Amino acid sequence: MLETVDLKAKLTKAEYKGIADPLDLRLAELQRRLLDAEIPVIIVFEGWDASGKGTAIGRLLRGLDPRGYKVHKPGPPTEDAIMRPPMWRYWQLLPPHGRIALYDRSWYSQVLDDRVFASKGDQSWADAYQRIRTFERQLVDDHAVVIKFWLHISKKEQKKRFKKLADDPVTAWRVSAMDRKRHKRYDRFTDAVEDMLRETSTASAPWTVIPAHDRRYAHVRIGETVAAAMENALTRKHSEPAPIAEVHLPNRRTSPLDRVDLSLSIARDTYRDQLRDLQKELHRIEHRMYVERIPAMIVFEGWDAAGKGGCIRRMVRDLDPRGFEVAPYGAPEGEEKHHHYLWRFWRNIPKAGHLTIFDRSWYGRVLVERVEGFATPEEWQRAYREINEFEQELAQFGMVIVKFWMHISKDEQLNRFKSREETPHKEWKITDEDWRNRERWDAYWQAVSDMIERTSTPDAPWTIVEGDDKPHARIKTLETVITAIGQTLDNA
Amino acid sequence: MLETVDLKAKLTKAEYKGIADPLDLRLAELQRRLLDAEIPVIIVFEGWDASGKGTAIGRLLRGLDPRGYKVHKPGPPTEDAIMRPPMWRYWQLLPPHGRIALYDRSWYSQVLDDRVFASKGDQSWADAYQRIRTFERQLVDDHAVVIKFWLHISKKEQKKRFKKLADDPVTAWRVSAMDRKRHKRYDRFTDAVEDMLRETSTASAPWTVIPAHDRRYAHVRIGETVAAAMENALTRKHSEPAPIAEVHLPNRRTSPLDRVDLSLSIARDTYRDQLRDLQKELHRIEHRMYVERIPAMIVFEGWDAAGKGGCIRRMVRDLDPRGFEVAPYGAPEGEEKHHHYLWRFWRNIPKAGHLTIFDRSWYGRVLVERVEGFATPEEWQRAYREINEFEQELAQFGMVIVKFWMHISKDEQLNRFKSREETPHKEWKITDEDWRNRERWDAYWQAVSDMIERTSTPDAPWTIVEGDDKPHARIKTLETVITAIGQTLDNA
Repeated sequence: MLETVDLKAKLTKAEYKGIADPLDLRLAELQRRLLDAEIPVIIVFEGWDASGKGTAIGRLLRGLDPRGYKVHKPGPPTEDAIMRPPMWRYWQLLPPHGRIALYDRSWYSQVLDDRVFASKGDQSWADAYQRIRTFERQLVDDHAVVIKFWLHISKKEQKKRFKKLADDPVTAWRVSAMDRKRHKRYDRFTDAVEDMLRETSTASAPWTVIPAHDRRYAHVRIGETVAAAMENALTRKHSEPAPIAEVHLPNRRTSPLDRVDLSLSIARDTYRDQLRDLQKELHRIEHRMYVERIPAMIVFEGWDAAGKGGCIRRMVRDLDPRGFEVAPYGAPEGEEKHHHYLWRFWRNIPKAGHLTIFDRSWYGRVLVERVEGFATPEEWQRAYREINEFEQELAQFGMVIVKFWMHISKDEQLNRFKSREETPHKEWKITDEDWRNRERWDAYWQAVSDMIERTSTPDAPWTIVEGDDKPHARIKTLETVITAIGQTLDNA
Repeated sequence: MLETVDLKAKLTKAEYKGIADPLDLRLAELQRRLLDAEIPVIIVFEGWDASGKGTAIGRLLRGLDPRGYKVHKPGPPTEDAIMRPPMWRYWQLLPPHGRIALYDRSWYSQVLDDRVFASKGDQSWADAYQRIRTFERQLVDDHAVVIKFWLHISKKEQKKRFKKLADDPVTAWRVSAMDRKRHKRYDRFTDAVEDMLRETSTASAPWTVIPAHDRRYAHVRIGETVAAAMENALTRKHSEPAPIAEVHLPNRRTSPLDRVDLSLSIARDTYRDQLRDLQKELHRIEHRMYVERIPAMIVFEGWDAAGKGGCIRRMVRDLDPRGFEVAPYGAPEGEEKHHHYLWRFWRNIPKAGHLTIFDRSWYGRVLVERVEGFATPEEWQRAYREINEFEQELAQFGMVIVKFWMHISKDEQLNRFKSREETPHKEWKITDEDWRNRERWDAYWQAVSDMIERTSTPDAPWTIVEGDDKPHARIKTLETVITAIGQTLDNA
């Protein structure tokens, strides 16, 4: 594959002059149009050491407005990153809609190095490429442009460039021990790179191999590739069919919610003893999680006034607050609105050994955003797969995932709303929005049923909690969490 | 000081029972009221190892809504933190308005350890306490409640507790080598702690020393101290005088802007040569900054259409984009609105060796926020000092700070506005807001004059740039930056 690259490709100074300036103008104009269209651009620069990635990035950016781009140079993962799933740190480096992010080395470098140096089993990099394909596809589905360059030079050329750098005392520091190690393994790297290009060249995020012996040629090829990809994205965005205003929800015949036995309850005195025991047990579990470095996530979704808050408070009562965090999520605001909807949840992924409880979550995409029309039908229908991929990636990292749908009857909800309105210290809990949501009970019922059916997976199953009796709900959520995390710990 | 602490203080189980539950209810109620009042709460737990900080935090939080608090346990600084001013990482850990942050060790621990172990010069910890006093005062001025506990136990008690932990295989790992090292130096630590308490007990952020031999006693003392501080904060906030609607700006007799010679200009051909040379020179400087680990910040403020963007683009044209970043700032949005106004700028402080160019900045506080009334007179008048402190702290870390006021005449602004409206590819640059701001020219003139007079300091001086002639402005800004960073490099 790489041996067919024409490394002799070059441009004369005169040829270059005629092309470069108009290209800069075209790119500057495109940058403005993409900003208006809120399309984010992700440009990956991978390539041999000394192939000129830094220079190429600088040249590409020359004509652009520096307020609209950001260059990242991800090094080896920090301790904080090692304690989280591999893609976590790259989610933090994504550009907001309309902006450009450039990566001098990216999510690919680590995989290549790991493969060539760490002699891991084949499966590990295959998994990594799977994760990357998913990552890039999710971004492209969110209208991002993903452009990936491999800057190619021969082993001989690399040697020559290293020598030139090393001979000059001003630049000698730039040739690192790692660079030399990689140079020695040029051939093994070639195999790994060809594999990477094959495995991760997709229709929506293709690789472009750039012959990089001649800088002028490389710069023009890169600039033209970027411009073409940007133009494509603009055409694609403008030619999209107008979003469907309202999706007609077929009436469901059956739903997992039909079978919920809301009469389940528990006697008060049994409850108090059980609760105390379970709280202590969860505290022990928290401690074992910390020692064994097992992370866990608990998701609470449910009808308004279903008792999420009460369950959460009892769940954490005996826990060491340094080991857990409760993350409440409302409507996205500020910079959250300028990112992929999963972005704000990726920021709160717990570290190894820690627990995060999500009070509402990414399921808002297929619940409130679906029902209220904040997401297009195409977007929320796509979301089931995205969410399953997201949770699978976390599970693969060793995350325990427990998801609760807190279920109550429509009558019980009415009672609770009224009681909140009548009790002075509970009044703050009830808002007009709660009443509005209640009017949409049937639409939510459909959305919840679809959600449970389509996102209950072996690694991240839903548990429906019978919530009319609060003590029952609190015991059941505690027991479920203890069992799920406990099993993982026992197998660790 | 510490020897007077009554370590025998204790509560019987019966006494405790009568106090603890009502205290929990009081705290829960206060948490809700502080959320409504948007008052952030910062609770620092420092104290001897094994004095029970973790347990005390857990007990304090027991009755609170876990969605409203977050516990931080800052360890030694990461590589990322070391490359930035010391308080940088603590700014990232501040609670949004209305929320509670608790710190199991905080900005104090590092200072204590450094002092006792690293045998640094006296000046280093004195500076640290100065920084901390400023930090806490700025937060309190922003309506935060700052509560600080020192959990005190005797050397004998500490030894006993270590032994108990070490004897149990389940808890033995909790006694670290560092803990033992600190225990050996208990007396030297005592001196350092007493000094810390003296140096950083201020009226607005006092220390409370808690006798921690008896856990029940400690928990009650802590809870009551927190509750009292919260109540105080609510009273203070509610008894504040109503903000003055409009501040009457006295007409200035003189202004630094009077003396600006807007006729300065430069010939086109001289300009092109100079520009090219200066761009190359700045590239060399950027490289030296990286090697010497010197960070730098450039602030661009100025009239609308004064040419900030053009100056910035020419400034970065030859730079390696991995070494700099342009950070544009508009009105605060999303979570930015729920924090101290300096918070969003602290997030973008460059690392050692890097350059950040701020396109508009924290000076918005004393410009647009003053003129438009978004900040109260009390707030913007206080801001001059806060800004000087902020910049001084950065300068102390070794940051080079260059600030430009881009100045043009009112006539020149009108010409540029019109030309923007008439030129198709410049139209996007002009908005209704620009015209509105123009109407307030005189009020801005006052605000700019005050700003320049009150925040030009030796470490962070303002440079007024004569902007009617764009080439002159571009050359002057480049030259100023090169001189400022160059001098620091020569002295490094």
